[in-house]
Amino acid sequence: MPIKANDPSRVSWLPVASDSDFPIQNIPFGVFLTRDDVITIGTRIGDMAIDLGALHQLGYLRDIPLTDDIFLQDSLNDFISDGKKTWRAVRNRIAEIFDIHNEELQKNEAHKKIILFALEEIEMQLPVQIGDYTDFYSSREHATNVGKMFRDPENALLPNWLHIPVGYHGRSSTIIPSGTPIRRPYGQTLPKDSKTPVFGPSQRVDFELEMAFITTDANKLGEAIPVNDAEDYIFGLVLFNDWSARDIQKWEYVPLGPFLGKSFASSISPWIVTLDALEPFRVESPEQDPKPFPYLRQEGPGSFDIELEVDLIPESGETNTICHSNFRYMYWTMAQQLAHHTINGCKINSGDMMGSGTISGTTEDSYGSMLELAWMGSKPLTLKNGETRTFIDDLDTVVLRGYCKRDGLRIGFGEVRSQLLPPLTPKGETR
Amino acid sequence: MPIKANDPSRVSWLPVASDSDFPIQNIPFGVFLTRDDVITIGTRIGDMAIDLGALHQLGYLRDIPLTDDIFLQDSLNDFISDGKKTWRAVRNRIAEIFDIHNEELQKNEAHKKIILFALEEIEMQLPVQIGDYTDFYSSREHATNVGKMFRDPENALLPNWLHIPVGYHGRSSTIIPSGTPIRRPYGQTLPKDSKTPVFGPSQRVDFELEMAFITTDANKLGEAIPVNDAEDYIFGLVLFNDWSARDIQKWEYVPLGPFLGKSFASSISPWIVTLDALEPFRVESPEQDPKPFPYLRQEGPGSFDIELEVDLIPESGETNTICHSNFRYMYWTMAQQLAHHTINGCKINSGDMMGSGTISGTTEDSYGSMLELAWMGSKPLTLKNGETRTFIDDLDTVVLRGYCKRDGLRIGFGEVRSQLLPPLTPKGETR
Repeated sequence: MPIKANDPSRVSWLPVASDSDFPIQNIPFGVFLTRDDVITIGTRIGDMAIDLGALHQLGYLRDIPLTDDIFLQDSLNDFISDGKKTWRAVRNRIAEIFDIHNEELQKNEAHKKIILFALEEIEMQLPVQIGDYTDFYSSREHATNVGKMFRDPENALLPNWLHIPVGYHGRSSTIIPSGTPIRRPYGQTLPKDSKTPVFGPSQRVDFELEMAFITTDANKLGEAIPVNDAEDYIFGLVLFNDWSARDIQKWEYVPLGPFLGKSFASSISPWIVTLDALEPFRVESPEQDPKPFPYLRQEGPGSFDIELEVDLIPESGETNTICHSNFRYMYWTMAQQLAHHTINGCKINSGDMMGSGTISGTTEDSYGSMLELAWMGSKPLTLKNGETRTFIDDLDTVVLRGYCKRDGLRIGFGEVRSQLLPPLTPKGETR
Repeated sequence: MPIKANDPSRVSWLPVASDSDFPIQNIPFGVFLTRDDVITIGTRIGDMAIDLGALHQLGYLRDIPLTDDIFLQDSLNDFISDGKKTWRAVRNRIAEIFDIHNEELQKNEAHKKIILFALEEIEMQLPVQIGDYTDFYSSREHATNVGKMFRDPENALLPNWLHIPVGYHGRSSTIIPSGTPIRRPYGQTLPKDSKTPVFGPSQRVDFELEMAFITTDANKLGEAIPVNDAEDYIFGLVLFNDWSARDIQKWEYVPLGPFLGKSFASSISPWIVTLDALEPFRVESPEQDPKPFPYLRQEGPGSFDIELEVDLIPESGETNTICHSNFRYMYWTMAQQLAHHTINGCKINSGDMMGSGTISGTTEDSYGSMLELAWMGSKPLTLKNGETRTFIDDLDTVVLRGYCKRDGLRIGFGEVRSQLLPPLTPKGETR
């Protein structure tokens, strides 16, 4: 089925600013609470949110095989389970309905009142009930930077890194939507030159600039997903801020990996941009040497040209753009990640989320974490207000943004915005 | 509320063999498919399964605040969310109903036909929909053995081990109930003395003797659970076989921890034995030196005297009991694990599962994995049929069993049994 929704010449009867992330060619999916306190699944064109539950109930999605309540849910999991054909059919239909040449809904004021919401009238929710969450570590520049700082500058990349998309299982219960503030976490850390740890709030809270993809049901337990089929099981992507407490992580992570240094919070942008919508921005990923095993050899370009930016906004309010990166810098593609994840027979479900790992480029302003930007505290960043930062301070807000742009078409992710609040003292602890 | 269900003098009108794991003092919870193809929540006394959905519908649980459909579900998550008071009230009532002095159901043949099933008539399911799964590493002997084999025999325990209950996030989608066979996983491994990996089926598939506890909703994001409240949020325990591919794990696990070497399968026993039922078997855990931080100091005995055994049954059918261990050997208690897990504000949900880590004792026959029992291949085990094993062979069946015994009372977990099947060649791979 052709992706008619991607027709670059289509114009919507809904207003879309020229720099909007959400033209009629995007049609992302999300979950929101409406002004009537109802949870529904929706999409967005320009600055209008579209209630897909109402659109479906009013008959606009007729002829697409969908259950009656598929959009009247608090997560996209069931819709995602319906598979790629259905996602594509729904996006194509939505594009038709909101096409400027289509008067059916455009001229129906009563229906428009039910279906359309201004962004101020809605509250975005987590779009999926996340089953399992995996985080990869697929930026060569990030892995190299971390290896230089924490291990051996001469052998920064570990021996396995060029052979496998290294990843680890993460905590899904603490993945939260944009706008939810987080607390500086408590934990154990090992002071410099000490042999015994101390307990208190983390002193090295950091963001990580990542993207994450969301899967559909893909395989049975024991079955691998072939790398060249893998994209069929990827619904779409979000921006992903994988908050990290570097000092807690450093003390705990040998030998079993990151744990409490990560699991206090990870923040995502609320609109899932489909892989279909990103198709015009497909690009080659970096060349791989050594050549990976056959189960990891993807045919054709497997990456996407997504510009990424990070803003740090201190309490005084000025926006400091501290990082410019791009998703195309990733060494391992999403298809390779998914093929690797399942080569042992691991079952993938609808609503699973997989993070890319921090996305750093080759230049110093493209590093995707404070750890790298301020090089482990040795090169503090100076903000517009004259303050300096080596990590994130209490009351700082971090915003990740992402968008694709080519030939006048812009498809974006909006943002993921979160403020770091001071620590809550645990019950029974006196400081 | 007193735990009346634990009255050791109570006798049931249902037959219970003297060596049964499931006397009327146990009353575990599980989910099963009945002879009528209906999924229900149930319990077990002796060798009879009890349909709690039917028991509730027929009015036997009156006066306990329960929603009508609380047991007519395919997972225990909602019942677990009801909290400890409700779990205790339901166990107490079940004990009364099946007490030999209570004739209400005992004499109602029509109701008994609806409520009771022989074990052969039912098929046990996964008891909970597992949200997040965490695996700890809390046996000092196991951590020491692994440290001796893989790192430095002189400094086998890593510096953080005595300060924090080390743990890592695991994969919940591949946790399967007893009886489900597993497949030998494919993956990358690094041959001895080689610098480049090879691809193929794992040659070192191992079991891990663990137990796992299941939590209820415990906290809000950002809040820690005090160690001395933690047990209130633990519903119960199961036996847990954390299948491991040692060779895959060895190549992948630095620096982010175990991933595909673990996520191909973990098997659990299907009946969750409540913490209440284990109360008579509470014992002190090993003394901790150094004394942990205040947030980890548990008052009173925090462990349980649970005998554990592992059988290896080769294709020829003889049962070889290859390990005798005990849950009380764990250095870190469940309450300490849960307090540590949440000290950073990590949200815990109903149905989360937390594994203990491999439970090894001090003697060589108490080691909880083939890795340790056969000391990384150097001391093969000889089976009754004359074959030897260093790891698990295709078609071997591994059975974990666990029970408590004191003053004539036996409370057990039954077993978790799984057979290892040969690998499935991934699509598109030729060997």
